[in-house]
Amino acid sequence: MLIRQVRVTPIAFRDPPLLNASGIHEPWALRSIIEIEIADGRVGIAETYGDQPMLKVLEQAKTLLADLTPFDLNSMEVRVRKNIVSTGGGAGVQIELAPGSHTNKNADKVISALEVAMLDLQGQILGLSVCDLLGGTVRDAVPYSAYLFYKYAKHVDNPYPADAWGEALTPDQIVRQAQTMIAQYGFKSIKLKGGVMEPVQEIAAIKALREAFPTLPLRLDPNANWSLETSIAAAKELDDLLEYYEDPTPGQIGMAELARHCDAPLATNMVVTTMEEFKRNASTHAVEILLSDHHYWGGLRATVSLARMCEVFGMGMSMHSNSHLGISLMAMTHVAAVIPGLTYACDTHYPWQEEDVIKGGRVRFVDGSVPVPTTPGLGVEIDQVKLAVLHQQYLECGIRNRDDLGQMRKYDPDFKGASPRF
Amino acid sequence: MLIRQVRVTPIAFRDPPLLNASGIHEPWALRSIIEIEIADGRVGIAETYGDQPMLKVLEQAKTLLADLTPFDLNSMEVRVRKNIVSTGGGAGVQIELAPGSHTNKNADKVISALEVAMLDLQGQILGLSVCDLLGGTVRDAVPYSAYLFYKYAKHVDNPYPADAWGEALTPDQIVRQAQTMIAQYGFKSIKLKGGVMEPVQEIAAIKALREAFPTLPLRLDPNANWSLETSIAAAKELDDLLEYYEDPTPGQIGMAELARHCDAPLATNMVVTTMEEFKRNASTHAVEILLSDHHYWGGLRATVSLARMCEVFGMGMSMHSNSHLGISLMAMTHVAAVIPGLTYACDTHYPWQEEDVIKGGRVRFVDGSVPVPTTPGLGVEIDQVKLAVLHQQYLECGIRNRDDLGQMRKYDPDFKGASPRF
Repeated sequence: MLIRQVRVTPIAFRDPPLLNASGIHEPWALRSIIEIEIADGRVGIAETYGDQPMLKVLEQAKTLLADLTPFDLNSMEVRVRKNIVSTGGGAGVQIELAPGSHTNKNADKVISALEVAMLDLQGQILGLSVCDLLGGTVRDAVPYSAYLFYKYAKHVDNPYPADAWGEALTPDQIVRQAQTMIAQYGFKSIKLKGGVMEPVQEIAAIKALREAFPTLPLRLDPNANWSLETSIAAAKELDDLLEYYEDPTPGQIGMAELARHCDAPLATNMVVTTMEEFKRNASTHAVEILLSDHHYWGGLRATVSLARMCEVFGMGMSMHSNSHLGISLMAMTHVAAVIPGLTYACDTHYPWQEEDVIKGGRVRFVDGSVPVPTTPGLGVEIDQVKLAVLHQQYLECGIRNRDDLGQMRKYDPDFKGASPRF
Repeated sequence: MLIRQVRVTPIAFRDPPLLNASGIHEPWALRSIIEIEIADGRVGIAETYGDQPMLKVLEQAKTLLADLTPFDLNSMEVRVRKNIVSTGGGAGVQIELAPGSHTNKNADKVISALEVAMLDLQGQILGLSVCDLLGGTVRDAVPYSAYLFYKYAKHVDNPYPADAWGEALTPDQIVRQAQTMIAQYGFKSIKLKGGVMEPVQEIAAIKALREAFPTLPLRLDPNANWSLETSIAAAKELDDLLEYYEDPTPGQIGMAELARHCDAPLATNMVVTTMEEFKRNASTHAVEILLSDHHYWGGLRATVSLARMCEVFGMGMSMHSNSHLGISLMAMTHVAAVIPGLTYACDTHYPWQEEDVIKGGRVRFVDGSVPVPTTPGLGVEIDQVKLAVLHQQYLECGIRNRDDLGQMRKYDPDFKGASPRF
């Protein structure tokens, strides 16, 4: 059962022109696919970030699993923490809105990628689902939210035919996007990615969503692109409309100050993204709801521990996502299925992706939830033909690091990307 | 694989007249043995507290596992938290020195007992050791410390022949006890249970131990029986002698104040015994080293999470013990084997126990450590004949709740048990 090879394949897949605080999605989103092969030829899989710094540390990590089996998760963690350098981190909303790009999380990110693939192998070997390896499910299906975005109809560079979603820049168009997405997926809560339009327009969009969906929980995420003053002023209008108010303003200090001026609970995937920040938040009480993300919090087991910590420190738990494919979605589903305190519907970008690398077509949603697989391991396998196609796209697309700001300047050369913009 | 029966058998085993802050051990120590049987007849085992309040909640818990398998650990936790009442807790050193007796930990204690037996079953079913189920070992053997006690030569009630250890009331006798124990077990660190004699005598004992064992780490545990003033005064003499200074004085506030007046790190199993206290300690910084104990911290998985929390909050980890037998020792060994940050030798009362319920004789130590079993499950099985003998002793001994204070008054009717006494 010794691990004999770790393969890392960077991929690029079509991504719509989704607007956010730092700019706009490029036509291609990057990820990497991890395959860990053991002596008998079985392969465990995982999906993680695909930017250059991540590929570099994944490359370094490849050699760390020599003489380990898929059951040696703790030894793997010790080796990664010892050998993978986690420094830097960067600043600015371009970086902050994608905690997965922080190099100070290198060890946690690598551990997560290796752990998911090793757990997939354990499950295959034992005939158990990954959720069973994590202590068994407390829910049979994991609810996700309808993740709405302001968007253009097509990419400026126009590298492939435009997506079917069309333009979404007005409250009416946002409502139509929600209607389409909910009709297709059955989601029972709604998140709007904000920090894009003037706050008054985003508030109008939330009000329009409330009118169109009187009973569904609503969330707004301006990605720290609103000043404290703007966030406080907006809170008066949003307090009664939102399930939670996600990262309106930058920094734990700003969020803590905002908390004193709004009723809606504050949520974050920007100011609590490391244990150090978690600890600080325990004294500032800035944020009530943590958006977990196993990809940068150190894996599925670490996410379970994080959930216990959230309980201790009186925090609720939801889940963050970046653009991702089906392998990540299944890992998210397994871990969300075993955490009693994860009571909010999870975020997912999955409806925005047309392509995937998994066998048997895209992951299916039922009534807004992903049914928890009961098959061994993660419950998904790689389609090598599709993987080859998406790897070829990676080789050809020319993108090596996500640059939403640079992309936005192709539309608007004067776009500043100052943060907070509003 | 459905669970079809949970059996709880209270037992009593011979326990030497060991002195501590609240009095003296009674001739019989109580525990309970848990057996969980699944449909195919396989049985998973655990060992936990055997006092009346614990037996009552274990009895209530028996019915909670209907329609679960040994893999449903998370569902079991949810059900126990919902159904087992955790209230009260009590006060006074008699209660405080045995966190396992706190009824505010009922749910955590029940979860732990059930979890260990369910993990034992998982391991048997899968052919994996419990440590493998917890992510695999980071050490092949778990070091324990020589746990020294002041003691009388025999029990006042004299219910069976005196133990072979003899009297230990002077520094010389304590050193001889250490020599005997280390010769038999090979321990490489030493803990003295204090809070019994005048502090000056206990300090003299530590000095005598330092002279007899120049290189071994030493610990002293007065079990909160020293006032803050006494603890501060003693610190001046102990600072250079101790690996850690364990619970000299009561309460987190006292310990935090003491921390400002001593160099030796403070350790505890008295002021951080719940998550609520952990959280408080995160702001008082009273204690640097946490003595974990899976029996009351919610099980092996919760102990692994607790270890991650200790890392986050900059705390070291060691392990606490009460009088226990081989099943507990194996559970302690499995969890200690998988936690990288558990760098201190663990406490164990095991050398003080002559009897056991496991097959194949008592657990063996090698150079002061217990080798981590690689056989399926916990790696120990119940000898039903021995279990029957120890259960009969329970029925006959008349003890139903530990009462070290009452026992001490048999020796000295004027013994007050005031805390702190010194």
